[in-house]
Amino acid sequence: MQHRTAREIRHRNRFSLLRAVYAADGHTSRQELAAQTGLSFASVGNMIAELLDVGVLTELGHDANGIGRPRAKLAANPDRGLLVGVDTAETTVHVDVFDLAMTVRRSVEVPIDPDATDPPAIADLIAATVTDLVGDDGDAVLGAGVIVPGPVEPTGGVSLFSPYWSWKGVPFRGLLTERLPYRLYLDNPLKASTVAELWFGAGREIEDLVVVTLRSGVGVGIAVDGTLLRGVTNTAGEWGHMVLLPRGRTCRCGRRGCVEAYIGAPGIAHTLRELDPASPLFSSDPLTTVAAIAAARDQEVAQAVIRRTGEHLGIAVANLINLVNPRTIVFGDSVAGYLGEALLEIARPIIAEYALGDPYQAVTLQLSGLRHNPVSLGAATFALEGFLADSDTFGSVSARRAKPGK
Amino acid sequence: MQHRTAREIRHRNRFSLLRAVYAADGHTSRQELAAQTGLSFASVGNMIAELLDVGVLTELGHDANGIGRPRAKLAANPDRGLLVGVDTAETTVHVDVFDLAMTVRRSVEVPIDPDATDPPAIADLIAATVTDLVGDDGDAVLGAGVIVPGPVEPTGGVSLFSPYWSWKGVPFRGLLTERLPYRLYLDNPLKASTVAELWFGAGREIEDLVVVTLRSGVGVGIAVDGTLLRGVTNTAGEWGHMVLLPRGRTCRCGRRGCVEAYIGAPGIAHTLRELDPASPLFSSDPLTTVAAIAAARDQEVAQAVIRRTGEHLGIAVANLINLVNPRTIVFGDSVAGYLGEALLEIARPIIAEYALGDPYQAVTLQLSGLRHNPVSLGAATFALEGFLADSDTFGSVSARRAKPGK
Ligand SMILES: [Zn+2]
Ligand SMILES: [Zn+2]
Repeated sequence: MQHRTAREIRHRNRFSLLRAVYAADGHTSRQELAAQTGLSFASVGNMIAELLDVGVLTELGHDANGIGRPRAKLAANPDRGLLVGVDTAETTVHVDVFDLAMTVRRSVEVPIDPDATDPPAIADLIAATVTDLVGDDGDAVLGAGVIVPGPVEPTGGVSLFSPYWSWKGVPFRGLLTERLPYRLYLDNPLKASTVAELWFGAGREIEDLVVVTLRSGVGVGIAVDGTLLRGVTNTAGEWGHMVLLPRGRTCRCGRRGCVEAYIGAPGIAHTLRELDPASPLFSSDPLTTVAAIAAARDQEVAQAVIRRTGEHLGIAVANLINLVNPRTIVFGDSVAGYLGEALLEIARPIIAEYALGDPYQAVTLQLSGLRHNPVSLGAATFALEGFLADSDTFGSVSARRAKPGK
Repeated sequence: MQHRTAREIRHRNRFSLLRAVYAADGHTSRQELAAQTGLSFASVGNMIAELLDVGVLTELGHDANGIGRPRAKLAANPDRGLLVGVDTAETTVHVDVFDLAMTVRRSVEVPIDPDATDPPAIADLIAATVTDLVGDDGDAVLGAGVIVPGPVEPTGGVSLFSPYWSWKGVPFRGLLTERLPYRLYLDNPLKASTVAELWFGAGREIEDLVVVTLRSGVGVGIAVDGTLLRGVTNTAGEWGHMVLLPRGRTCRCGRRGCVEAYIGAPGIAHTLRELDPASPLFSSDPLTTVAAIAAARDQEVAQAVIRRTGEHLGIAVANLINLVNPRTIVFGDSVAGYLGEALLEIARPIIAEYALGDPYQAVTLQLSGLRHNPVSLGAATFALEGFLADSDTFGSVSARRAKPGK
């Protein structure tokens, strides 16, 4: 256990360092990295040497400010390799290819055939889409993260349950491994969004945060001291299925009165239906309906939908604040993109009313600043973490160092 | 930060070792401790030498099983000193004096004069009660933990807010320091119960648990990987003030529909009043009313109260499971002592209905096995942790070792 702890600390320090490099966006020196991570200058120096050695970092030239000797600037090396992020949602598969500077190189989104949603069919679709998008660059791929909806057991790579399809206990990573020659990481959207925020969003500065994902499904990721709280079956954060109104609406999960039944995209469409069953804002896709509500914000019915949704959001967020007492809550993903600001405006006074005084004073509520789909970015981040924690990546360095005569 | 981390790991390993010693109840060898803590034999050996040196551990003789050389058995040394635990509740101050084997040596409970609840008056009462109970053994006291209701900022020793009295931002540890010559630790009941459970209850085996405190107020403590989740203002765990029924009963906190308004002792009395306003089970003290309900379990009205309370508990616990995904939930304190089994019997099917499948399958629900008031035990445990993390305790050893000629 102590051995594992030492390894984990080494990985965690390596992650911290690289997070600081990404945050600095190319203007980083060893001195600044030591200050920002709180690590000693010596251990920052060692880690940088190691990361330069394996090509993860690159020197961008020197910053000669006239005082002392010039300081080398460091950045993640975009040419070191590619990371694939796959966001499997209810009706689409979205794939991004990132370089190691986490710049999106290529993207594609393909529809899911509603008649072909058994696990092998979805695995075929993902594999074909990834293979197409990667093209001739397969050798450069360092890993691929694949996100599927619902609870996931990441170590074994098992989808425990899918809210959309009749999956139960599907060894989905195994199905993908038969089809794709990459190191694969399977996880769920809430965990992915949170890891994306920790590496590239609000979590770069704040280590105690809750990331609220608002899309078709809703839920949260809880980070304590920079570490994602997974829970014993990796299902911590199922805030969307906490009871908001006992004996309320039937939720997609089969239970009644869940948070998601009111503030997920279908829940918002449901509220519109209650208020105006014949509204021209409807479309067959709930997220398109949400977009239409956002665009019609000057209409009374849209305002009423936003008001009710914001009130429900407010109570559910106050509950979260009372239980978890985070520094920051970040709201992200598609529904937040369309309606985040409007919903927060309604929710804030409700939160102030229902949250306890001190934790309410201590918390900051903000919309995600990530410009990219947080789920595919998080998927690629899992692959990045795996690459950075992989002894194959660094083992060769130690071997080289141990045998300098080789 | 790295330095702090190394220190924290040292403290944490020292805590793990001592927790294992307490758990083994006097039948522990170095070999077993290494196996149980997952620490290396060498580092267990070093820590034990250090703990023997400062008198925290003692050797209980040898276990000669005929194979190899006899192995020394270790235990916490009851004669090393005393720890004081103070549980300040709404109407009483309960004080225990523990030896370092965590055996209660002396106890007392005194009533709080409802007309003398300003901070200096409560501080006077606590100081006089502790001084009386400690008597001539003041020099042996290693520290005292004092628990006050409501949110507490432990580093500064400030009571942020009291649910019973009109306290707000009271530097209560400072008031006590003027009156008591001990190292003092201030915290709140939820944190104390959880630390007690981690050291001496279910947490000895399970590192991911939630401890539900059911007394006049209710709330939870969340332990992740053996560490208490405090939140950014030490108010994580205010499950009692999560909204259970929007626009429901007015809670003591002034909000409406809180969990506590239904399952805290006054909430249970409130339910009895709704069902039978003239019930002979009433007494002026809600906890006595709860005891009467428990004793009258064969009467219909008592059964109805238990049924409603258990249903509310079930939904609130299911919400907790969905958000936190713990391995174990432990229910403790006075209301659990009277009604725990009966409430869990009602709550279980509700929890099964509202919790998600995998986290529900993974969780164990149990009543606390602590035979003692978990709050005063936790208070003394904070003092124990402080003593074990105090460089004064161990610094002298290092000094002795550094200067063997002295
Ligand atoms: Zn649900
Ligand atoms: Zn309340």
